[in-house]
Amino acid sequence: MLKITKREEDFSQWYQDIITVADLADYSCVKGSMIIKPYGYAIWEQIQHELNLMIKAKGVDNMYFPLLIPMNLLYKEADHIEGFAPEVAIVTHAGGEKLEQEYAIRPTSETIIYDTFKNWINTYRDLPLKINQWANVMRWEKRTKLFLRTTEFLWQEGHTVHQTPDEADDFSKEMLEVYRVLAEDILAIPVFTGEKSKSERFAGAEKTYTIEAMMQDGKALQSGTSHNLGDHFSKAFEITFTDAHNQQVHPYQTSWGVSTRIIGGLIMTHSDDNGLVLPPNIAPIQVVLACLMNKDEAENDKIKDEADSIFKNLTKLGYRVKIDDSDLRIGEKFFKWEQKGVPVRIEIGARELANSSVSIFRRDEMSKASVPLLEVTDYVTMITPKIQANLYEKALRYQTQKTLPASTWEQFQKLVEEGNFVIASYDGTDETEAKIKELTKATTRCKPFDLDQSNLGNCIYSGKPAVARYIFAKSY
Amino acid sequence: MLKITKREEDFSQWYQDIITVADLADYSCVKGSMIIKPYGYAIWEQIQHELNLMIKAKGVDNMYFPLLIPMNLLYKEADHIEGFAPEVAIVTHAGGEKLEQEYAIRPTSETIIYDTFKNWINTYRDLPLKINQWANVMRWEKRTKLFLRTTEFLWQEGHTVHQTPDEADDFSKEMLEVYRVLAEDILAIPVFTGEKSKSERFAGAEKTYTIEAMMQDGKALQSGTSHNLGDHFSKAFEITFTDAHNQQVHPYQTSWGVSTRIIGGLIMTHSDDNGLVLPPNIAPIQVVLACLMNKDEAENDKIKDEADSIFKNLTKLGYRVKIDDSDLRIGEKFFKWEQKGVPVRIEIGARELANSSVSIFRRDEMSKASVPLLEVTDYVTMITPKIQANLYEKALRYQTQKTLPASTWEQFQKLVEEGNFVIASYDGTDETEAKIKELTKATTRCKPFDLDQSNLGNCIYSGKPAVARYIFAKSY
Repeated sequence: MLKITKREEDFSQWYQDIITVADLADYSCVKGSMIIKPYGYAIWEQIQHELNLMIKAKGVDNMYFPLLIPMNLLYKEADHIEGFAPEVAIVTHAGGEKLEQEYAIRPTSETIIYDTFKNWINTYRDLPLKINQWANVMRWEKRTKLFLRTTEFLWQEGHTVHQTPDEADDFSKEMLEVYRVLAEDILAIPVFTGEKSKSERFAGAEKTYTIEAMMQDGKALQSGTSHNLGDHFSKAFEITFTDAHNQQVHPYQTSWGVSTRIIGGLIMTHSDDNGLVLPPNIAPIQVVLACLMNKDEAENDKIKDEADSIFKNLTKLGYRVKIDDSDLRIGEKFFKWEQKGVPVRIEIGARELANSSVSIFRRDEMSKASVPLLEVTDYVTMITPKIQANLYEKALRYQTQKTLPASTWEQFQKLVEEGNFVIASYDGTDETEAKIKELTKATTRCKPFDLDQSNLGNCIYSGKPAVARYIFAKSY
Repeated sequence: MLKITKREEDFSQWYQDIITVADLADYSCVKGSMIIKPYGYAIWEQIQHELNLMIKAKGVDNMYFPLLIPMNLLYKEADHIEGFAPEVAIVTHAGGEKLEQEYAIRPTSETIIYDTFKNWINTYRDLPLKINQWANVMRWEKRTKLFLRTTEFLWQEGHTVHQTPDEADDFSKEMLEVYRVLAEDILAIPVFTGEKSKSERFAGAEKTYTIEAMMQDGKALQSGTSHNLGDHFSKAFEITFTDAHNQQVHPYQTSWGVSTRIIGGLIMTHSDDNGLVLPPNIAPIQVVLACLMNKDEAENDKIKDEADSIFKNLTKLGYRVKIDDSDLRIGEKFFKWEQKGVPVRIEIGARELANSSVSIFRRDEMSKASVPLLEVTDYVTMITPKIQANLYEKALRYQTQKTLPASTWEQFQKLVEEGNFVIASYDGTDETEAKIKELTKATTRCKPFDLDQSNLGNCIYSGKPAVARYIFAKSY
């Protein structure tokens, strides 16, 4: 059995160990691509389910566009191809022949989708147009890490078209808010919401909004982005519509995505040295019924009957429950579900039945309580929202403690070095940003929406007048 | 507005017209790949939902394997590569470099999955192993047709590993039964279940089982297949396990898939010259509430209120309902939902309200009934299963009428020419099968499980002693 490396010893190895012991994913024989194993995929299915409901509630329809993108389309928006060209995988042969037209495997689908939108949009009555697809995409990264950066990943990408720049900007912010709700309310990951600096923007965007989470090593994880694309793509792809004044004009667009990367964020936000920790709102199994079997078959039947009865009561209330009546030894059985991060474990054995009670274990606090059989359902209903809230608050406390302002360059360097999010004023130039990155490895994460931007003073690095206050941090 | 070509004039154009008027899908700028539009994708989401429940009920876990397959893996099973090599799309460049290892875009995933299973299976305790993935696959076909044959398509592919040949064969039949239930009970498509001839088997399989449906032009559509792979792949991929007698042996495998192709079958089974027809069990919208708006705003508000009230009552019962209170003219509004195949249309206007009744239209029979407002919910609950059954029975009658035995070669040719499924005895040789195909374009569809195989007599073509009775037909 694999021993989990401690976080403080080697955070990166700890992360890998958590994925292994919880059996979430594995590398494959394809460079940098992963196999998402059943338990990891079940988490993704939960994320899909929750996010899909929220996306559809915004009036967005799901559809599906081709995997392949003709290379010439990819080149239509100059910034876009500059950003993605180095990472593209290319199909040159198919059906036993060299292709006249080479194809890229989609790194993202703006180009092929907008080339199609051109044909679907005629008048303002066709707008807003709002679609989404759940798909695999490919970016040929050199350095990969399970969930966080893989050559192929799964995601949803939403694409909308609007009449005015303001409507597009508002909608891109609305979708960022959806991502904030997913992160904070479902995954219990507190995030900063804000705008990316110019150099960190999506290739081709006017503005990129982001949710930024802090991992337990103090590093930032960009966990979802929403782009106000302005009319950059509608111009490049010649999308026009007849407006209410009968003028032919270009519409304004947005795109936004969340990927399997967020599972990496989920792992690194909550898990501990004992294994994975999952918030109840996303856990594929919220409650495991650990039957403590022994050699008395009649006794075992009673235990199983009681487990069945609790299972029925809880599933009726909508809980995701699993009965483990395997012949694993008790210690191994507990250990397994601890490592898999199941929020609540109910232990039922002969002794428990004799007392008409069960032991209920909370994974978040690694604590156990004895609960009368008649009160099990009420108790589970009571503690699951508490576990959810506790995980969020714990992560928020950590994030708050480690998000600190710097007023001098020395202080900035020290705070970055110690693994904090550092709030600092900055002169807004690419050069300063590049220099700060070179010297400290910290990048601008975002200009938070709710951060006070008054009395900016001078840039933390250049000493020139600052234009904004950003969060800087090392990141994944 | 597009006029739908009549089925009897040009069946192929009719099919294309139905897809266009119902707005299900479109060709893309990628050769032979399609864009699945929102309404078409919503049908696929319903299929996924229903099939996923049945797959999981068989103890199968969803997971995800890479899109790319190293070319050398594809070559490990000789029959397999022979079958798929001509259709493979190949990635030769990525990340700005020529790749040392070329990759195929998966045409199906046996090879990469079984190369991984090798590492996961050690003893009989690891078996059966049952997984499934929902994925896109690519087969570079020369002649393509929306849904039926596209270079990229969406599907699920299940893969299982068993200790014994019988267990593998039983499970592959169990999954075929799942596909039969999907086709018949959900999609209202009657099918023949049976075994494929050797030449029609999946590349690398020991046996291929199939569900074969009859389209309204009498042609067959292979709508789902389940393969007993024997130990062909476990030998090629060196998968072994220690059995209960402590021997190292090869396990036996199955794979099975249903794709977006079945949407083509759904269209061609039920639709008519007025547009798409959908069975209630799969329709993304089961009931549309067509509000007949006029110029009296107060009246319109009352109509909308009544529609809201019906909407709430029906959604509470689990129906998928849509309110159309758009300002489309009445005729256009009816026409739109007829073309989209919504099974039930409820019409509410001022006149209806004055009579405390609504008109309820059944798409399957193009018939209308006046129903008192108080009885709307009961009426819908009563007719939806009737519509489902009616569509199935209508298709079954057609299939039965057009499935005929042939006892002479002349009769065989005539029946094939007239667009029937022809039951005939056959000598079991590849040569005869090839010759029949060359002369009539009919292929063996399957040897039905429940077809009497006694008194076979002589082969319909060669006159030699027959070994089995098959269904022959032209097919998609």
